[in-house]
Amino acid sequence: MQLARVIGDVVATYKDPNLSSLKLLVLQPLAADGSDAGRTLVAVDSVGAGVGETVFFVRGKEASFPFYPTEVPTDAGIVGIVDHWDLG
Amino acid sequence: MQLARVIGDVVATYKDPNLSSLKLLVLQPLAADGSDAGRTLVAVDSVGAGVGETVFFVRGKEASFPFYPTEVPTDAGIVGIVDHWDLG
Amino acid sequence: MQLARVIGDVVATYKDPNLSSLKLLVLQPLAADGSDAGRTLVAVDSVGAGVGETVFFVRGKEASFPFYPTEVPTDAGIVGIVDHWDLG
Amino acid sequence: MQLARVIGDVVATYKDPNLSSLKLLVLQPLAADGSDAGRTLVAVDSVGAGVGETVFFVRGKEASFPFYPTEVPTDAGIVGIVDHWDLG
Amino acid sequence: MQLARVIGDVVATYKDPNLSSLKLLVLQPLAADGSDAGRTLVAVDSVGAGVGETVFFVRGKEASFPFYPTEVPTDAGIVGIVDHWDLG
Repeated sequence: MQLARVIGDVVATYKDPNLSSLKLLVLQPLAADGSDAGRTLVAVDSVGAGVGETVFFVRGKEASFPFYPTEVPTDAGIVGIVDHWDLG
Repeated sequence: MQLARVIGDVVATYKDPNLSSLKLLVLQPLAADGSDAGRTLVAVDSVGAGVGETVFFVRGKEASFPFYPTEVPTDAGIVGIVDHWDLG
Repeated sequence: MQLARVIGDVVATYKDPNLSSLKLLVLQPLAADGSDAGRTLVAVDSVGAGVGETVFFVRGKEASFPFYPTEVPTDAGIVGIVDHWDLG
Repeated sequence: MQLARVIGDVVATYKDPNLSSLKLLVLQPLAADGSDAGRTLVAVDSVGAGVGETVFFVRGKEASFPFYPTEVPTDAGIVGIVDHWDLG
Repeated sequence: MQLARVIGDVVATYKDPNLSSLKLLVLQPLAADGSDAGRTLVAVDSVGAGVGETVFFVRGKEASFPFYPTEVPTDAGIVGIVDHWDLG
């Protein structure tokens, strides 16, 4: 999983039916020091995240697990909202 | 998932039978600011996208979900046509 | 999926039994403009491709779909021979 | 799998229910010479690892295997604590 | 799949039980010209490979296929020992 900041959302009228009720958010992945790290991506949300929040997200088929048994065709999903992280 | 622009298509006479009725489109992934981001790829389409349109696509086995129960051997599929996206 | 040129083949006496009757080809991925793009890799072939041909290949578990029900331990497979591609 | 050093942990009140009892650790992947190699990430732990330890972790759906039959939505999991590694 | 040279091994007392009888080898991926290409990684072995040998390995869930029905939590596995490869 990776830390990320929610920076926007996507509006799409024509999309796969299994995506139709889902929020599509634009994420900027973050490094452990809080700086931007890598390309922006589009993820589905299952935990109520919104623009401006820090989250962590999962890549791959696992991103569709929270919607089981619906087979959501996504490869990225927000699975937690970060309160804070600590470096030891 | 990633934002992308459809920039072309691929013609292939000899291909896996489970790909035979599918449109094969060439995509240029996009960053959140609309600039090109990363390598071009070939994706199948299940939402009626065409050259010139902005879409979002999924990577991995999830790309074959829209064709279930056919096991389409693809690792990239367009799953939505983007009306617009907003950065918060 | 990605476009690629078949540039060689691999000979391996000791390998997983489920790979034993398969052709192992060395691929150079290509960008949409036909230039080399990224690292060479080894892929299995299910469409009769040979050295010198332009193909497209799939990464991940999907690469084993054409051999179902045999569970071929591969993460890359050629699924089509490219006649040509067009940029719009 | 990759070698990594555990450098921190993540606190998240709102997260997927299947992640709720799991430790979320921040990892810095390592090259074979022990230097940092690539981006930090967040992984679940199933072997009792803690901050400061050297571990190896797995990416992808395999990261959820240790929690089966719970379908943990993770794409990275620590699966071993490294005593040492040797270069031949 | 990718070509690689086996450059070392990993000793880990505490690890996932499904990894306990497996050899954990450190691999350096190779380009088609035999030069180093990309980061070192840790892979399981199912074909009897040892340090110094040239192999090819598979990434992803496919790496656990040779151990079926055991669900080995690995994302990289050596599936063949290379005799030689030829560039056409």
